[in-house]
Amino acid sequence: MLNNSTNTVGLVAPQTMHFDEALMLECGKTIEQYDIVYEAYGRLNEKADNAILVCHALSADHHAAGYHSENDKKPGWWDICIGPGKAIDTNRFFVVSPSNLGHCSGSTGPRSIDPKTAKAYGPDFPIVTVRDWVKYQKRLADRLGIKQWAAVAGGSLGGMQALQWAIEYPDAIRHAVVIASAPKLSAQNIAFNAVARQAIMSDPSFYDGRYYDYDTVPTSGLKVARMLGHITYLSDDAMGDKFGRALKNEQLNYNYGVEFEVESYLRYQGESFANRFDANTYLLMTKALDYFDPAAKENGDLSAVFEKVKAKFFLASFTTDWRFSPERSREIVSALTDAKRDVSYLEFESNHGHDAFLVENDDYIDAFSAYMNNIEVSK
Amino acid sequence: MLNNSTNTVGLVAPQTMHFDEALMLECGKTIEQYDIVYEAYGRLNEKADNAILVCHALSADHHAAGYHSENDKKPGWWDICIGPGKAIDTNRFFVVSPSNLGHCSGSTGPRSIDPKTAKAYGPDFPIVTVRDWVKYQKRLADRLGIKQWAAVAGGSLGGMQALQWAIEYPDAIRHAVVIASAPKLSAQNIAFNAVARQAIMSDPSFYDGRYYDYDTVPTSGLKVARMLGHITYLSDDAMGDKFGRALKNEQLNYNYGVEFEVESYLRYQGESFANRFDANTYLLMTKALDYFDPAAKENGDLSAVFEKVKAKFFLASFTTDWRFSPERSREIVSALTDAKRDVSYLEFESNHGHDAFLVENDDYIDAFSAYMNNIEVSK
Repeated sequence: MLNNSTNTVGLVAPQTMHFDEALMLECGKTIEQYDIVYEAYGRLNEKADNAILVCHALSADHHAAGYHSENDKKPGWWDICIGPGKAIDTNRFFVVSPSNLGHCSGSTGPRSIDPKTAKAYGPDFPIVTVRDWVKYQKRLADRLGIKQWAAVAGGSLGGMQALQWAIEYPDAIRHAVVIASAPKLSAQNIAFNAVARQAIMSDPSFYDGRYYDYDTVPTSGLKVARMLGHITYLSDDAMGDKFGRALKNEQLNYNYGVEFEVESYLRYQGESFANRFDANTYLLMTKALDYFDPAAKENGDLSAVFEKVKAKFFLASFTTDWRFSPERSREIVSALTDAKRDVSYLEFESNHGHDAFLVENDDYIDAFSAYMNNIEVSK
Repeated sequence: MLNNSTNTVGLVAPQTMHFDEALMLECGKTIEQYDIVYEAYGRLNEKADNAILVCHALSADHHAAGYHSENDKKPGWWDICIGPGKAIDTNRFFVVSPSNLGHCSGSTGPRSIDPKTAKAYGPDFPIVTVRDWVKYQKRLADRLGIKQWAAVAGGSLGGMQALQWAIEYPDAIRHAVVIASAPKLSAQNIAFNAVARQAIMSDPSFYDGRYYDYDTVPTSGLKVARMLGHITYLSDDAMGDKFGRALKNEQLNYNYGVEFEVESYLRYQGESFANRFDANTYLLMTKALDYFDPAAKENGDLSAVFEKVKAKFFLASFTTDWRFSPERSREIVSALTDAKRDVSYLEFESNHGHDAFLVENDDYIDAFSAYMNNIEVSK
């Protein structure tokens, strides 16, 4: 709850910016016009050199910090890191947090009306990639008068966007903050995404992605996808500590209902997600993850990709993260040092698996704060 | 193919044994009559002291070794370990391999006709546990005139049955061979099962388990469940080595079809499984896994459970198995040594994850063979 806490950005409201300039996408298709919904915290200084771009991961959106109403139970997804006196200190920085193209929370996506057909895009919404998002975010930066981000920051898929910014626009980013991320998905990562998509696409309510026309939603498939995703966000240890083999009721029922607490938790998580998130967007986001592979154009040589990069890097990973393990961050670090780039890397002890980048942890917050405090900005 | 190879049990045929004695199950329900389908290899000696019970895991059945026809492409599921001169040497041992109660390949299960209703049991088939299976296998042993198994052996869920035999019938088993197994599921293990069940049960063709009546099959749900299961059987490394990010076609298509080899492989695995396996049986098997927890009756003290055990133990685990990691086997070993039982434990280097117990590997086969060779049997 908002209460009287002093280190929150307080009440915030998303803003919408409309773009009429067509965006050519990596898949070869074009989006003729689109809206970018974003939130902004803090104040852009005169030289516009204190702006931070925050990039969201698979299931989050533009609401990164603060509250939408006095009654909100939870703040934005990265509120532990964004606010007055926090790692991304809104007393110093101007923070911009957009929803990505393809999203379902305001920015143009599958649920938006395609001006050509006057119907929702649905499955005709083109596949978007991390590189497309970075181009799209660049348009927003230009419109806001931000020639160079003091930093681009994100965790997981958000970290991939920070990485891509450094590669794509070397002069438009001074620092890249890449947390709990990876230079590309492994076969196992792709496999989990494939199962999630299979669950959604085989739900009869999916109607090949045209469920809006049938006034239905593939909640069953999306629920399965999210339950599965959730397992990969948590560590085995954390699940053990939190649930173990605790029963939902006092004794075993020997039926197919919920028997263990962990089942109950997963079902709840799956259901609440399925009720708020759009299935076509979920598909798009998993594909963006699959396709991300900046080293592909250099035959897998990531250090070659980093040759022209000018940004300094802060990378962090978490010991029990098995979705994007510390090893995956070290691949990026190693390529950066091979390319003689400036990089700080820290591996934090945490029990929270991949979700650790969203969880309060003194060592992590302190190190992140220290790095951000050393970023120079004019008054 | 069968060919002229000398170390195969050759052509085999399953046998069916009918039981009219009611079996009281752990869930409180009773199965009044049932068939046990099993295969047997080798010859029971005069003293009946050379019999080995082989217990199958989640998706296998009674067909553990040899071929059903000259044209079979693959032998039984543990053919690498069962045959003349193999680890379970059919020149010395008489091997019995039943399908468990609840299965879909002959032994009585949800697809069988319930004599009370003259219709398939479907979802009314009672939940069965590892302990129930062991009781059921005991009936088979009694009928075959086997008072004591030289060994009970299995991998994964099969290893749990070997463990339960040692606990349940201390005088009826001399050796327990427990490979790639665990003393109980972790919260993460249960979570994966819960997602698999959710996928099956939310398939509209499931009809609350009564799909036989509707002449349909929940293949979509079963396919998702199997794709997911398959990921947990393979190691991250093995998937990386086998598939990496190799594309199915020469270039990216930017659509929701199969893009990567690993997706193609998983879909194929899921489909072929969904076409041969019964969904109700799959649900039952995952529940048997969830419920297995022999230490529960001793408030989690596994060593207390082992106090009355007389069997000697051979345990093995594989380095990249993340479904039942070596740590899980060590929990069993530790409890056995605390209870001062006789135990051999080996951890094998393998890239094959949980599936390693089904894969040729010299160190594993040699150690398993050595252990089995030391089991004394009369002529």
